[in-house]
Amino acid sequence: MDSVDTVQSTDRRTGSTEPVGPETTTEEVDRLVRAALDAAPGLAALGRAGRAALLRACADGLEDARAEIVRAADRETALGTVRFEGELTRTTFQLRLFAEVLEEGSYLEAAVDHAATTPMGPRPDLRRMLVPLGPVAVFGASNFPLAFSVPGGDTASALAAGCPVVVKAHGSHPATSELCAAVIARAVRDSGAPAGSFALVHGLRAGADLVAHPAVRAVGFTGSVRGAQALMDIINRRPDPIPFFGELASLNPVVVTLGAAAERAAAVAEQVVGSFTLGAGQFCTKPGLVLVPSGDDGDALVAAMADAVAAREPVVLLNDGIQESFSRGSEALAATDGVEVLARAGGTDPARVAPLLLGTTAGSLPPPVTEECFGPVSVVVRYDSRDQLLDAIDRMPSSLTATVHRGAADDPGLVAQVADRLQGHAGRIVFDDVPTGVAVSWAQHHGGPWPSTNSQHTSVGTTAIRRFLRPFAWQGAPQEVLPPELRDDEDLVPRRVDGVLRLRTPLGTDLGEDS
Amino acid sequence: MDSVDTVQSTDRRTGSTEPVGPETTTEEVDRLVRAALDAAPGLAALGRAGRAALLRACADGLEDARAEIVRAADRETALGTVRFEGELTRTTFQLRLFAEVLEEGSYLEAAVDHAATTPMGPRPDLRRMLVPLGPVAVFGASNFPLAFSVPGGDTASALAAGCPVVVKAHGSHPATSELCAAVIARAVRDSGAPAGSFALVHGLRAGADLVAHPAVRAVGFTGSVRGAQALMDIINRRPDPIPFFGELASLNPVVVTLGAAAERAAAVAEQVVGSFTLGAGQFCTKPGLVLVPSGDDGDALVAAMADAVAAREPVVLLNDGIQESFSRGSEALAATDGVEVLARAGGTDPARVAPLLLGTTAGSLPPPVTEECFGPVSVVVRYDSRDQLLDAIDRMPSSLTATVHRGAADDPGLVAQVADRLQGHAGRIVFDDVPTGVAVSWAQHHGGPWPSTNSQHTSVGTTAIRRFLRPFAWQGAPQEVLPPELRDDEDLVPRRVDGVLRLRTPLGTDLGEDS
Repeated sequence: MDSVDTVQSTDRRTGSTEPVGPETTTEEVDRLVRAALDAAPGLAALGRAGRAALLRACADGLEDARAEIVRAADRETALGTVRFEGELTRTTFQLRLFAEVLEEGSYLEAAVDHAATTPMGPRPDLRRMLVPLGPVAVFGASNFPLAFSVPGGDTASALAAGCPVVVKAHGSHPATSELCAAVIARAVRDSGAPAGSFALVHGLRAGADLVAHPAVRAVGFTGSVRGAQALMDIINRRPDPIPFFGELASLNPVVVTLGAAAERAAAVAEQVVGSFTLGAGQFCTKPGLVLVPSGDDGDALVAAMADAVAAREPVVLLNDGIQESFSRGSEALAATDGVEVLARAGGTDPARVAPLLLGTTAGSLPPPVTEECFGPVSVVVRYDSRDQLLDAIDRMPSSLTATVHRGAADDPGLVAQVADRLQGHAGRIVFDDVPTGVAVSWAQHHGGPWPSTNSQHTSVGTTAIRRFLRPFAWQGAPQEVLPPELRDDEDLVPRRVDGVLRLRTPLGTDLGEDS
Repeated sequence: MDSVDTVQSTDRRTGSTEPVGPETTTEEVDRLVRAALDAAPGLAALGRAGRAALLRACADGLEDARAEIVRAADRETALGTVRFEGELTRTTFQLRLFAEVLEEGSYLEAAVDHAATTPMGPRPDLRRMLVPLGPVAVFGASNFPLAFSVPGGDTASALAAGCPVVVKAHGSHPATSELCAAVIARAVRDSGAPAGSFALVHGLRAGADLVAHPAVRAVGFTGSVRGAQALMDIINRRPDPIPFFGELASLNPVVVTLGAAAERAAAVAEQVVGSFTLGAGQFCTKPGLVLVPSGDDGDALVAAMADAVAAREPVVLLNDGIQESFSRGSEALAATDGVEVLARAGGTDPARVAPLLLGTTAGSLPPPVTEECFGPVSVVVRYDSRDQLLDAIDRMPSSLTATVHRGAADDPGLVAQVADRLQGHAGRIVFDDVPTGVAVSWAQHHGGPWPSTNSQHTSVGTTAIRRFLRPFAWQGAPQEVLPPELRDDEDLVPRRVDGVLRLRTPLGTDLGEDS
């Protein structure tokens, strides 16, 4: 038997470490996943109201532990307490929003087709609804220790769906993960959900064991393409492939039109630089490439960006691996033929990296420029013409986001054409704003074609719950076997009845029936 | 350069062949997929009404060519003209139903979140809708030359979604495929859709080329696990994995309760035998295993099933490969320790196979008994107790369907328990009916956990369209850039506005606004 390593929590500013506990063994992963499997019927049986209460208990518990969690996350990442006050608020908001999703009930896609005669002959009574997949493995992200980690969107949406969750903690913030896991475990207990509904594991081997485990039915992952590919390889070796929902690499190109450059160069420069240096450039929606028109207005915009970057402080990245990878990648990018350094922040602290602005032209557009480099670097790409701009867009990889800064003087046809081209390369298009800061809402989409994700789903916003559900149909079923939402004369959720979408009867409506 | 083989259409009764044309070369596949890619914007721009017209034109064209198509399909499969009259009706019904789906518009999942202040701070204007994926490769199934092949559900739902389609014809019915493809190509032309919106290819290499092609964005497949795995291997070698929607192997267990056996043994026997021999046992929902209680009532049921099977005629299977595979597989099953032959249809024609009923006990339940054997064979598994029944269910692989035949005398708790167990192993549960004959409707689900499919989606029913769509979000977008369905004050489709689901305003409603 291999010896078990100890998980260490590192103070990212001082380098001092504290032990968190042992890495999770294969045997322990097996025990936890079996417990999750055993918990699945009980978690489903809690019902929508019971799981809504569970999610709100998680949110309340995180608020109660706010000071301690913010302190731990800041200590492990050096991202600052202000950032984590906001991220914790985002995380509790998200949990509570999924409670609303449960109460609203549309997510079930409930449909009732009564027995009928059709052109195909008699049709039996058919009723369809989404049901939970079973235990879900969630991989916490390095860059959002709360909102995309233990208590984050994958966990919230999977628990909402009725799926037990086993999270693999990210190695960069194990102490924060433990604090959050304790909150969720307490909420599980207090809400009457089975104890196996939630668990936390540590270590790379535990992550691989999770993905290979026969009882795990889906994986939620936020991380690198390389990490995703390793997990997808494990899935492809399973006798039963399972769905993998990966949020991976994203370049997030920004297009600045001639009009925007002419009308508000300073404001656009401030927005773009603020966005690509936010969180030390470690957002999945960081704008990594900015298409700026050639000419005086574009020059002024680039000069303003360069000034803003030069005035930045150097920053600490999330871990040594990311720091080394950024240093290597950004220097290789800067040394690429046709790429010049436009600005670099000051400072010589070897524990920090300097935000960096590079430049090139759309005519050359050397390939490394269109690859994501995780960290505080962005490349300005100057274009001479509409054709050169559209051609450059067509050479972009797909991203989570694409952004357009427009001006009043622009040809509206150009804006429509740019938006249309960008749609093929992104999951969200942003106008006159920054791509970072992904609002959690009903209409949000955080996803996109490969390599930004491998999925047709979102990992932010209410529809993220669809990832952890599958349809199920009941044919000619007795009422008592049907879930309440599909029974006759029930008015619990919006339903499609014989093809017609029906809302719930508003409260207070007199149905003229016996009460 | 390899020589190009000729595709042959075989008269399945006489063995005589006719050339259909050459197998599609790699170069031709590339040309067709590029044409599909070029057609994508035009097909999307047709809009929902334009694509609804296209689908109805396909349906009308199939009706116009009904006699010729039915004759060709019967000739290539020996399944009989009655069957194909029905299958063609099903196919046109399905095309027209997707036209209704387009007109109704809920499938877009349109959502509008207006700019607002939230606990997370200001939220921008966000609008979300599903958009087409791009060119889709469809693999026609051997067993449904119409409803699951060239003009079938995958093609209908992909075209409805706005995705150009390239179908790989099944080698067992190339002439039928060509007839149907000509109808669709004509409908494409007449509806003003770009010519590249639809194409047909022949040959195994063409299928592999399709799945590997960079411009293909998704695959719809109905066939064997082995065939699916070969295509998934190709996908896993792509630089960009694409979604694969496979409908694969399904055992479709049937549970007969003590009550059902006691109350209507003859009727249940007739239903089950009729279902497992329908289409020569070549339905994906064929009941391949029947759990029957031990004791006199169960004995009577099994005797009735055996009589019904013995009275059947031998049948011709879809092609030589399936015929050989059935003979080998069913004989191996019959020779398995603990399995006995209960009945075999008569006849000695070597070109035909005899429907076969086998028997074993839940106590032994040898493993081959729980694997799908494609063709007219089913295994009766006798159980002695509730525990033995539930244990046997837990040992079933997942299937598209599971069926329960109940009686009035049964403990309702038993039925609920059986239904609950079966739900974990199936995509649809059928009560007191047959699993074959999958109604095309809004509430239908034709899918299930691996190995019945690898997906969380259906391949039959209106929600099949979701497979070929991805979400897209617009943030702060000008009205003219938004799709019509997301513009302010539009009432084109049901939408979720600021979290609240809203139906379209019914026709004739006076909104009190200027007209």
